[in-house]
Amino acid sequence: MKVKNSLLNYKEIIYQDDDWFKFSMDSVLLANFVTINMGVKKIIDFATGNAPIPMLLTYRTNAYIYGIEYQKCIYDLGIESIIENGFINQIKLINGDVRNIKELFELESFDVVTCNPPYFKKNDSSHLNDNEVKAIARHEITLNLEDVVKNASYILKNRGVFAMVHRTERMIEIIEVMKKYRLEPKKIQFIYPKPGKNSDLFLIECVKNGNSGLKMLSPIVLHDMDSNEYTDEIKKLFGNKN
Amino acid sequence: MKVKNSLLNYKEIIYQDDDWFKFSMDSVLLANFVTINMGVKKIIDFATGNAPIPMLLTYRTNAYIYGIEYQKCIYDLGIESIIENGFINQIKLINGDVRNIKELFELESFDVVTCNPPYFKKNDSSHLNDNEVKAIARHEITLNLEDVVKNASYILKNRGVFAMVHRTERMIEIIEVMKKYRLEPKKIQFIYPKPGKNSDLFLIECVKNGNSGLKMLSPIVLHDMDSNEYTDEIKKLFGNKN
Repeated sequence: MKVKNSLLNYKEIIYQDDDWFKFSMDSVLLANFVTINMGVKKIIDFATGNAPIPMLLTYRTNAYIYGIEYQKCIYDLGIESIIENGFINQIKLINGDVRNIKELFELESFDVVTCNPPYFKKNDSSHLNDNEVKAIARHEITLNLEDVVKNASYILKNRGVFAMVHRTERMIEIIEVMKKYRLEPKKIQFIYPKPGKNSDLFLIECVKNGNSGLKMLSPIVLHDMDSNEYTDEIKKLFGNKN
Repeated sequence: MKVKNSLLNYKEIIYQDDDWFKFSMDSVLLANFVTINMGVKKIIDFATGNAPIPMLLTYRTNAYIYGIEYQKCIYDLGIESIIENGFINQIKLINGDVRNIKELFELESFDVVTCNPPYFKKNDSSHLNDNEVKAIARHEITLNLEDVVKNASYILKNRGVFAMVHRTERMIEIIEVMKKYRLEPKKIQFIYPKPGKNSDLFLIECVKNGNSGLKMLSPIVLHDMDSNEYTDEIKKLFGNKN
């Protein structure tokens, strides 16, 4: 069912469909994490879904932001959302395939690429979804890790920034693929569901053709130990209440 | 100057020389971190220094523990320490070179390898020491990252465990070298000096020929924010006071 939701406590409205997936915390964390320098002119969000990351990035930059989404039904929700919020002059959504990025944009034409990609391998049945739209968003059915990284590297300028959120258990593989496409990991931050638990997600940022030398940020803990409520740190991220 | 110290609050005595280096927290954390399964029979600690890791591991296992140290003067302190503590039947120290491990031990003859190696690149002058003994212990002068990993892989049995503590800023390079020598990272834990600061050190454990899939443990924070005292978590590690 299509529902109209607020983008957490931000003033923006986001359209989503409860049958598919809900816009998630991961996107908020990624939109906060990515480095956006003064000179940034063009940003693209791969597998943008209903466009939460482009919309959140408008808080941080006046750069022009593209979002590309493969599934027409989700793309349509994104279009509705950016129209309703008046972002039509800053955000452009494309209903297309990241794997064909060369047909859409020129080599080395972007400053920043972000991505909250499908997390699970095609054959990882432990998280399989019976719903096809949801399955494509969560599993590497039409877009896998290497597709994302290869095309990010293609489209990024020299010294451009690629930032992604992904499953911690896949970090080693992720670093290998990034190195293969000359994206040097420079900044990582782990996300822990609660104090004392293992990390399930992490944020990673690379610089194309960057030098080695990694910065490991202070970890993010989502929930308090006992109450199950968001930690103060997380609540601060939703501080732009309107 | 040679001094006789306690191994933190453990009951053991350790000999060290203040002109060279002090036995450090890193070794305690590594000795606690490494996985030692029931069947483990032979462990070796590379670049063992004055043998803190072998001595601490006696708390966790009855396996036979070797330590190998290149510098004779530090090795001598280790020997004194293990004699004084009565570990002569469980720990054997070798004054030798990790790079020549093939001449000392057979291929695939150990269950576990630990290492607190020299952290800094030879040309990293920001941490250079004027004292030669100290410089060799801290810089990759006689033993570099690849030497450590290559020889750990040689000496480990199939599915054997390699655990190391190292500088967080070098993590990407470390993972690459491990993968090169078929040591699959399976468990990582980051160490933060204080809440809100970036991580400077991390613990990493690999399984030889292991499958992919990484566990990211809850981070370790060493000091409280304001008091500069050790956190309760760290104090617990020193709980075996005698």
